Amino acid sequence: MTLPAPLTGVVPPVCTPLTPDGEVDVPSLRALVDHLVSGGVDGLFVLGSTSEVAFLTDRQRLLVTDTVVAHVAGRLPVLAGAIDMTTPRVLEHVAAVTAAGADAVVVTAPFYTRTHPAEIARHYRLIAAHSPVPVIAYDIPVAVHTKLPAGLVLELAADGVLAGLKDSSGDLAGFREVVGGARPLAGFSALTGSELLVDAALALGADGAVPGLANVDPHGYVRLDRLFRSGDLEGARAEQERLCALFGMVTAGDPARMGAGSAALGAFKAALHLRGVIACPATAAPQIPLSAEETEQVGKHLAAAGLV
Amino acid sequence: MTLPAPLTGVVPPVCTPLTPDGEVDVPSLRALVDHLVSGGVDGLFVLGSTSEVAFLTDRQRLLVTDTVVAHVAGRLPVLAGAIDMTTPRVLEHVAAVTAAGADAVVVTAPFYTRTHPAEIARHYRLIAAHSPVPVIAYDIPVAVHTKLPAGLVLELAADGVLAGLKDSSGDLAGFREVVGGARPLAGFSALTGSELLVDAALALGADGAVPGLANVDPHGYVRLDRLFRSGDLEGARAEQERLCALFGMVTAGDPARMGAGSAALGAFKAALHLRGVIACPATAAPQIPLSAEETEQVGKHLAAAGLV
Amino acid sequence: MTLPAPLTGVVPPVCTPLTPDGEVDVPSLRALVDHLVSGGVDGLFVLGSTSEVAFLTDRQRLLVTDTVVAHVAGRLPVLAGAIDMTTPRVLEHVAAVTAAGADAVVVTAPFYTRTHPAEIARHYRLIAAHSPVPVIAYDIPVAVHTKLPAGLVLELAADGVLAGLKDSSGDLAGFREVVGGARPLAGFSALTGSELLVDAALALGADGAVPGLANVDPHGYVRLDRLFRSGDLEGARAEQERLCALFGMVTAGDPARMGAGSAALGAFKAALHLRGVIACPATAAPQIPLSAEETEQVGKHLAAAGLV
Amino acid sequence: MTLPAPLTGVVPPVCTPLTPDGEVDVPSLRALVDHLVSGGVDGLFVLGSTSEVAFLTDRQRLLVTDTVVAHVAGRLPVLAGAIDMTTPRVLEHVAAVTAAGADAVVVTAPFYTRTHPAEIARHYRLIAAHSPVPVIAYDIPVAVHTKLPAGLVLELAADGVLAGLKDSSGDLAGFREVVGGARPLAGFSALTGSELLVDAALALGADGAVPGLANVDPHGYVRLDRLFRSGDLEGARAEQERLCALFGMVTAGDPARMGAGSAALGAFKAALHLRGVIACPATAAPQIPLSAEETEQVGKHLAAAGLV
Repeated sequence: MTLPAPLTGVVPPVCTPLTPDGEVDVPSLRALVDHLVSGGVDGLFVLGSTSEVAFLTDRQRLLVTDTVVAHVAGRLPVLAGAIDMTTPRVLEHVAAVTAAGADAVVVTAPFYTRTHPAEIARHYRLIAAHSPVPVIAYDIPVAVHTKLPAGLVLELAADGVLAGLKDSSGDLAGFREVVGGARPLAGFSALTGSELLVDAALALGADGAVPGLANVDPHGYVRLDRLFRSGDLEGARAEQERLCALFGMVTAGDPARMGAGSAALGAFKAALHLRGVIACPATAAPQIPLSAEETEQVGKHLAAAGLV
Repeated sequence: MTLPAPLTGVVPPVCTPLTPDGEVDVPSLRALVDHLVSGGVDGLFVLGSTSEVAFLTDRQRLLVTDTVVAHVAGRLPVLAGAIDMTTPRVLEHVAAVTAAGADAVVVTAPFYTRTHPAEIARHYRLIAAHSPVPVIAYDIPVAVHTKLPAGLVLELAADGVLAGLKDSSGDLAGFREVVGGARPLAGFSALTGSELLVDAALALGADGAVPGLANVDPHGYVRLDRLFRSGDLEGARAEQERLCALFGMVTAGDPARMGAGSAALGAFKAALHLRGVIACPATAAPQIPLSAEETEQVGKHLAAAGLV
Repeated sequence: MTLPAPLTGVVPPVCTPLTPDGEVDVPSLRALVDHLVSGGVDGLFVLGSTSEVAFLTDRQRLLVTDTVVAHVAGRLPVLAGAIDMTTPRVLEHVAAVTAAGADAVVVTAPFYTRTHPAEIARHYRLIAAHSPVPVIAYDIPVAVHTKLPAGLVLELAADGVLAGLKDSSGDLAGFREVVGGARPLAGFSALTGSELLVDAALALGADGAVPGLANVDPHGYVRLDRLFRSGDLEGARAEQERLCALFGMVTAGDPARMGAGSAALGAFKAALHLRGVIACPATAAPQIPLSAEETEQVGKHLAAAGLV
Repeated sequence: MTLPAPLTGVVPPVCTPLTPDGEVDVPSLRALVDHLVSGGVDGLFVLGSTSEVAFLTDRQRLLVTDTVVAHVAGRLPVLAGAIDMTTPRVLEHVAAVTAAGADAVVVTAPFYTRTHPAEIARHYRLIAAHSPVPVIAYDIPVAVHTKLPAGLVLELAADGVLAGLKDSSGDLAGFREVVGGARPLAGFSALTGSELLVDAALALGADGAVPGLANVDPHGYVRLDRLFRSGDLEGARAEQERLCALFGMVTAGDPARMGAGSAALGAFKAALHLRGVIACPATAAPQIPLSAEETEQVGKHLAAAGLV
């Protein structure tokens, strides 16, 4: 299907359920898609950071995209990450996911290599020139260690290179600059990647949200979005605060024992397992799994949010 | 062949010559290998950062490894980088380069994902468990944004997980801790990745060096190594200082126009082109090419070092 | 006077006008205070980052506090920064500014020294134990290179150590955690230091704002605050967007020629000079002054915002 | 006395002994100076990072300088740190320490404020213009979060602004660039601040060393310096390795409980106390003191190094 322009509402970055031995759990992935669709979401984003894209082999990435595109069957737009270090490698992922039917590709700045704004611009221009579908910039400094400058995003948007931005930078002031600057550009999608500031992002003009926690509680994020759009800002804020509390699950994993990524993805998958959506909470190597006690804490967050 | 234990001397990270349209230039790659072998180097490291590994597709990586392994034909050990974000993806590269005949694999800490010492340890343990050849840790914080702690390297070395370290961290004090700590471990290879401190690294006990600039002047680095080993420390220092001046070529590219990676790799390839070793100085996208004036400056550095 | 608990509304960090030879320009400082008071602000914060506190000698700091406290004469609360590297030095500033009549002190985490959450906690506990007035934490990682963890701020607030937070971290999600966590603590003042997200901060529950740009346009920030409090969120957003455009003045200074601090403080002071509030736009050494052309650009921002 | 040009040998950054209630312990400070002088050191550096300058009030800084200058009585050059955020505040410290008799001042880049190379250059030019004694640049990115570019140091040295560099950056390659570039400048002092690489720094041309650990074992560092100068490089290396092992004392403090500064300064002072040089091992607030067990570990490091 054609990507809506702009894309609005809630577009979860879809977790990738794994079997205990690290393979893609296709039935669980389909069940997760059903869970999200029935939650009322407006699109799906596969192969993002929350999808453990950094851990999936090319074969697994293809299986994920194939599975989700086939299962969604055109009911919702499917965005796919094309996440790799530099242009030539990203172009291969773009070819793979678009052949599999992705409706848009989501691409970060170059990483591993030291980069420069002129190189980032060249990167996106080359990718857009070779992509059969719209290109959405993915601003995620915690992963790629470069911040996409707002001015650069707007320049590329004005030139038709970028169709949107997924902002996972945490810098809401910079995001606001993009939102304001892109207002004259019909169809540009400004999406926040924050779990915690969706109401604030919508209030300043964001088109939608891509919150990892929406895997766990899609209904909550959809409710938040609908409350906001109906003008019930207090209701949206209350829903956001309920989701902020739920997000506290990412602190269950002991930071002395694991990184913040292991803790966050481990919590989301534990919650999906506890909610009965996926068969196994395993995360990919070399992430450290949550302990039984830590999983129990995740369960308490679910209970407190009314989800068990 | 079996990797020497320890590996000593000069082991250049081999540049990957490209055609103007970004394909691996196989004849130039063979010519570069000849240039290095005739310079007297002690091993070759393909698919490292200086090889633009971050820019090469899997197909190109395989072509590089196949070409170099075949051309070297057992005269020297060939190390190969298995550079990717996390364990599952790295394991695929390990399988590919060892099937192609690499004598050791060189592996960084996880990147893109946020990591933790426990995850880094698990990463290396899993890779060593699946690798048919020795595993060398690649400490390169400028690329992966994590520093390998000396204590962790030593723990993994003592457990037989790591056969060596290539230290491109710039932290000579930390490297010294590994060198000293690994002294009781027979066969551990402590290699510096610095172009500028090879004499200092050897003096504190390094086994060898992996300097990118050795592509341009392998004879110089081999001379430095041999002078040091013969006890002529003053001569080694003078040779090192000549090479430090030559390394000034990496400042030819204008930092207002390009990143430090574009400037360094562009200079090395321009120098190889000017010296007649490779057919084309192109670097991979999205790097910015040197201008004619910048290339001329590289030439002046070659001339000042007596290389033209 | 006693600090309101919570402190609400607009509390500008007062610029410190200087003479061409770097002395405090007392008449201009009084005129600036008049400008702010007539703009309807709710308090004044002297000796903050926008006040160039890092550049003022102890004698100058005292002169600033004395001047402002005397001139305000109890009409508004006066907060004063006690900005220095560690506890013993901060305690001396606390003694000085409270002797001069400050109604609260504003204190950062330790800097220059490498610090730790346990040391930050000890720092604030010692300061609160010795301060005759409430202590407000100043979270400004761009200056001190440490982020105050939300949990630590809340723990110190619950213990009565901290009376408030001025958040200049840019991390609105972290600020939200403090705002939510402090809700049960009567009287805690959660203040945003952002120029660009005042509407968003108020919407998630902030008590007030401390925007440097309010020196230039106090009426605008007061209008924004009053619109929000009256429930006119669209009006507040429009006012905020006008102020975001005005803030563009901080890009007038050429980043090839000066740091971001020189550019921002230079623009604020140029604007105050152009508006006729202060006699001289000089900033303290070693900051680089704006050129005539750059000052002209600042003037264009004023004109576009309807301020000339 | 006039500062030797260049200053060579071992110049310890003198710890500041404190009483249990945080005052300067003048008798212990004199005893520490005696300990260092009898160890054969070539100069003394007061009010550096190892001296806890960031924690000392102006009154305490003056007392330290007065005490040391009077006690040394011209037997050795005394360098003094003038450590503060920006030019106007640094100039006041320069005036104070030179009035007290310091033979040189040691000055960092601006901190707290965001800075720029042009501002750093202006900073040093203004300070040199107002200092009656030579100015030595202090490159300590871990404290000020800016690295002094080698080219800038050399430009300022060539202009007579800087008389030397104390390099605590850990970047030996950058230090080498300064050493090489300053060779034509008669009298420039290139000093390493590293405890762990003194032999390496001397080998590449450093004039001397300013190692904090020399408080604990001045004889060791002087022996290392003399061995190197006599041409016994193996002996120098062995002495350096003994000192590297001794430096392990900085890991005694538990990183879960305190920052790296607390651990390092706490260990140095515990060692001086255990060796009977100073009366009390207290460090200044808000640093966390070593526990009895941690102090015992420091003692084991002393014993292993033959110092008890």
